[in-house]
Amino acid sequence: MQHQLTDEIDVALASLPLIDPHTHINPHRPASETLADILGYHYYTELAHSAGLSREEIEAPGLDPKERVARLVPALVHLDNTVQVSWLMEMARTFFDFDEPRLTADNWEALYDTAATRMQSPHWESTVLEKSGLEQVYLTNEFDDPLEGWDTTRYVPCLRTDDLVFRLNQPSVRDRLAAATKVELSDAASLGRALAKLFERFTERGARACAISLPPDFEPMPVRDHEAEVALSRALAARDLSADAIETLRRYVFWKLAELCDAFGLPFDLMIGVNRTVYEGGVVGGQDLFDGRTSLFGYRRLFNAFPRVTFPISVLSSGLNQELVSYSWIFPNVVCFGHWWYSNVPAYLRCDAQARLQAVPRTKQIGYYSDMYKLEFALPKFNMYRRVLADLLVEDFVYARGWNEEEALELGRQVLRGNVERVFGRPDGK
Amino acid sequence: MQHQLTDEIDVALASLPLIDPHTHINPHRPASETLADILGYHYYTELAHSAGLSREEIEAPGLDPKERVARLVPALVHLDNTVQVSWLMEMARTFFDFDEPRLTADNWEALYDTAATRMQSPHWESTVLEKSGLEQVYLTNEFDDPLEGWDTTRYVPCLRTDDLVFRLNQPSVRDRLAAATKVELSDAASLGRALAKLFERFTERGARACAISLPPDFEPMPVRDHEAEVALSRALAARDLSADAIETLRRYVFWKLAELCDAFGLPFDLMIGVNRTVYEGGVVGGQDLFDGRTSLFGYRRLFNAFPRVTFPISVLSSGLNQELVSYSWIFPNVVCFGHWWYSNVPAYLRCDAQARLQAVPRTKQIGYYSDMYKLEFALPKFNMYRRVLADLLVEDFVYARGWNEEEALELGRQVLRGNVERVFGRPDGK
Amino acid sequence: MQHQLTDEIDVALASLPLIDPHTHINPHRPASETLADILGYHYYTELAHSAGLSREEIEAPGLDPKERVARLVPALVHLDNTVQVSWLMEMARTFFDFDEPRLTADNWEALYDTAATRMQSPHWESTVLEKSGLEQVYLTNEFDDPLEGWDTTRYVPCLRTDDLVFRLNQPSVRDRLAAATKVELSDAASLGRALAKLFERFTERGARACAISLPPDFEPMPVRDHEAEVALSRALAARDLSADAIETLRRYVFWKLAELCDAFGLPFDLMIGVNRTVYEGGVVGGQDLFDGRTSLFGYRRLFNAFPRVTFPISVLSSGLNQELVSYSWIFPNVVCFGHWWYSNVPAYLRCDAQARLQAVPRTKQIGYYSDMYKLEFALPKFNMYRRVLADLLVEDFVYARGWNEEEALELGRQVLRGNVERVFGRPDGK
Repeated sequence: MQHQLTDEIDVALASLPLIDPHTHINPHRPASETLADILGYHYYTELAHSAGLSREEIEAPGLDPKERVARLVPALVHLDNTVQVSWLMEMARTFFDFDEPRLTADNWEALYDTAATRMQSPHWESTVLEKSGLEQVYLTNEFDDPLEGWDTTRYVPCLRTDDLVFRLNQPSVRDRLAAATKVELSDAASLGRALAKLFERFTERGARACAISLPPDFEPMPVRDHEAEVALSRALAARDLSADAIETLRRYVFWKLAELCDAFGLPFDLMIGVNRTVYEGGVVGGQDLFDGRTSLFGYRRLFNAFPRVTFPISVLSSGLNQELVSYSWIFPNVVCFGHWWYSNVPAYLRCDAQARLQAVPRTKQIGYYSDMYKLEFALPKFNMYRRVLADLLVEDFVYARGWNEEEALELGRQVLRGNVERVFGRPDGK
Repeated sequence: MQHQLTDEIDVALASLPLIDPHTHINPHRPASETLADILGYHYYTELAHSAGLSREEIEAPGLDPKERVARLVPALVHLDNTVQVSWLMEMARTFFDFDEPRLTADNWEALYDTAATRMQSPHWESTVLEKSGLEQVYLTNEFDDPLEGWDTTRYVPCLRTDDLVFRLNQPSVRDRLAAATKVELSDAASLGRALAKLFERFTERGARACAISLPPDFEPMPVRDHEAEVALSRALAARDLSADAIETLRRYVFWKLAELCDAFGLPFDLMIGVNRTVYEGGVVGGQDLFDGRTSLFGYRRLFNAFPRVTFPISVLSSGLNQELVSYSWIFPNVVCFGHWWYSNVPAYLRCDAQARLQAVPRTKQIGYYSDMYKLEFALPKFNMYRRVLADLLVEDFVYARGWNEEEALELGRQVLRGNVERVFGRPDGK
Repeated sequence: MQHQLTDEIDVALASLPLIDPHTHINPHRPASETLADILGYHYYTELAHSAGLSREEIEAPGLDPKERVARLVPALVHLDNTVQVSWLMEMARTFFDFDEPRLTADNWEALYDTAATRMQSPHWESTVLEKSGLEQVYLTNEFDDPLEGWDTTRYVPCLRTDDLVFRLNQPSVRDRLAAATKVELSDAASLGRALAKLFERFTERGARACAISLPPDFEPMPVRDHEAEVALSRALAARDLSADAIETLRRYVFWKLAELCDAFGLPFDLMIGVNRTVYEGGVVGGQDLFDGRTSLFGYRRLFNAFPRVTFPISVLSSGLNQELVSYSWIFPNVVCFGHWWYSNVPAYLRCDAQARLQAVPRTKQIGYYSDMYKLEFALPKFNMYRRVLADLLVEDFVYARGWNEEEALELGRQVLRGNVERVFGRPDGK
């Protein structure tokens, strides 16, 4: 009976058109062109590599897409237990009517060819969007992205700021900033003008968020203009910066971004806790890891200083999720945001989502985003989340609290979509 | 069948009269006088504020209780998913026969008036105690509480020592200590005498525990008298103390308290891991948060130095609960104590309680306390815990281990009440 | 139905002969000789002590085995909720046909006598191995163990290196090393030769792993020979070493061991996160605890530097297990290894194992080891794990993914045994 009700709620929620509030979609090529675009997702290449396939095999320069798939498929036998591979099989079934239980050296080629044919259709993108129930997809745009050449009401720009905060000491980043804004960096004031220009351009093109990923040891705090200027002028003079000076510059730029989010009315997505290039020999996208010794306590100054800025927060561990539940329960401007990366596994996703549903105001939880690079991934990922959500709604609300089915559904809809609109704005931009 | 057995055990456990071993009850006004005393609980005001209600609305000076409720009720629509609001609805149903599924702008006034009428009855307090199965309630008393004017065998004093340890450098705290003990602070010896006087007065009035809440970075260690005296004399001379001197004083006073617990045979309740005033703009009681980077390792010197003092320990995260399970399994004087604050949510409570039941001696777990400010809260909070406990008893002991129902019940009774008596003493003081 | 299928899978998995890849078995006396060998396991003595039995009672010198049991049994009434005591009862039932639900002062003596009789049989060891389905048992050998006098294809040597890394500054350890290798320590080169001799001897005798347990704050990094030599020469001259010099020596020896694992093709078992002698007054084996503030991030240099060495990793908390899941997902040379010590409780074991099964390549998880000191413990411990494993296979793979029973079983077999062979080698040494 519980399974039946869960199924009903799952189906009912699946009829709700989705806004996917965080992806890495390239709006010029949103859908896959061959199966290699799917199997080339870093979750598969890194797992295949972890299970023994060499990086050279996977990332050989100029590798033909079909050959790349041919090399990856044999590794799947070592990975078929993973939820990531279950997404692959679900995509194969749903989009390409593949009815084998596993993808093997014996059967992959037929799938590859079917996929290639369908993906060549001019309607492929809209087919995927429709089958996946996707109405709108948020992007991750570099600050110097021209934001032109696509429908920004379907593929919504978001300003990604990792380079600005963490690599402004590099001349190439400063050159890109100058080129994008026509502002020559010379001091703190010009830096402020350049950043403001970015916000102007992005918001004019309908951007809905500023976003950044942050290492475990980053601690935002305000920095005085003249302190930042000392560091900036060393960088501009091409002199080496001390670790302290680099940190000063990072904090300064980050704080400026928060001020601009305030001024421009943009939420500031914080993705907290990732160390980059931990595994130096890893495949592209498969080198970063988290450190459990991370706390939101270091963000208290930020949350206190910007009460009008909403901070949708993503974390990488259940330990930090418990902090996030508490911070969202207390701080009006802190919102739970999806289930990120290493946390996006049912075992963790379930307990993390359960605690949020039990203790955080229902208006302050954005249930899920796909983090996808290609459109096809939204379907299996949202299905996975929706199944967990339906199960929790039945268990904790219908059974434990006596809610009726419609009340449970309404909570599900709010978490799945309503709060995306509430925090980031409606699809029509209102 | 599992549900049926869980129900049976739940009902059987509910017939056991409770001792609530940690509350913030004011013994002069233990029960609520209007619904504002219930809806004014910081869990509701902070959640309402987190969901968008301004602090000024909630905490306007001189606000009429009915008006306060009128302002808070509309916010509940954003919170009705939380377990905290489920407690509210359970209190409304049980104490006031309120049969609406939700409290809304349309129906709250009738509840308010019914509650006001019933609460005015001279029997209200005993009605609540009886309906809740409460036999005895432990308090949290400031060190200078005169401890007079109520039945201390029903409302049992406990000496709360946060001010002594963390704010003795403030003249107002020293003045209160001098006034309460008639001992003028001049050196370490006089400080020792003053603290001993407090223990004498509290134990004479039947106090059952010394208690304190501690920040994540506090690390108890012994301090020599003369080191403490250097810090103390600076404080007495109204000179600024360095951070080190403040820490020295804190450690010194804390260690003295442990010595006095030893001398007076009192357990020392440690509530570990809360940072105060993290959210500066929060409502009263809604400003504190925990930091996941907390360990019991810092308490090893204390646990080793005081083998005869029992330390009932409360923690705020599942991560630290796993440490607590291990420390209680090893240290004879470490006891698991309830499910505190941000951990008091079924998702966390269940896994924390499950691990304790599976790995800590049954004599060393005090299942639950309400932490309540008004008597009405014991009922829904203990009901929540008891339901989880009954479920674990059925799943892990009746089914997984083949225990019979009575054996499972006996474990439940011990955790729910027997160990309260074992650690803190019987209700009759023996 | 779910229970029925879980039972079927559990039974099917139980027919698979086991290799136990980490124990503390003494190969000269692998099985128990009296019940005191079982009840003397530190899990029982430390829990009994934690529940109130004095260390003096438990560890009196020259204590008769039967008297020791007589003293421990009464404490069991305080511990019978623990999973550890459930192992005891399962051993009593399975090996000695004891059919009482509890071991008490009234019934223990009969069990003691039955056990003593059976254990005296010359076939006892093989009876236990057979009943437990044990084909091969890995040991933990001190570096100067002569490795002689037993069948090393049944009881497989592993080189335990804690003393070498953490206590080489002690003359007694250096004397043992010199005696074991006939190499006199004089400089870094001779140290390297001595360590290489150990690896030669151990691998000649069929050793399958090098192993070490590590405190939370240890961070492996390469040290130059001459830096190590400065520290080593101070130690050799019997002069005190600074904390930095001790750490330098530790890192140097540890790194050398990793180099030797590489050269000799041995996996390097890392048991990460234990602080020794936290409870100074504890019973033997019951003094060590973990610190939740531990991360694998500190091991990145090691994992990057030795891509050909496999690191089977054991951790003590669910927080660190989540890191381990991510590190095994990314690093080819990182493998999940069992459920260690304080984590070896169903509540934690289940969620830790679930996340591994969902996100780590199936080839990279070694499900379980017993960590036993006496052979009888493998049976209840592996049964506990297998039950959890069967339950997860049914829930997450048969039900959630639609796998058939044989596919689920195959995953179970791989985790339970196949990967032991894959990582450490087949029982026949091939």
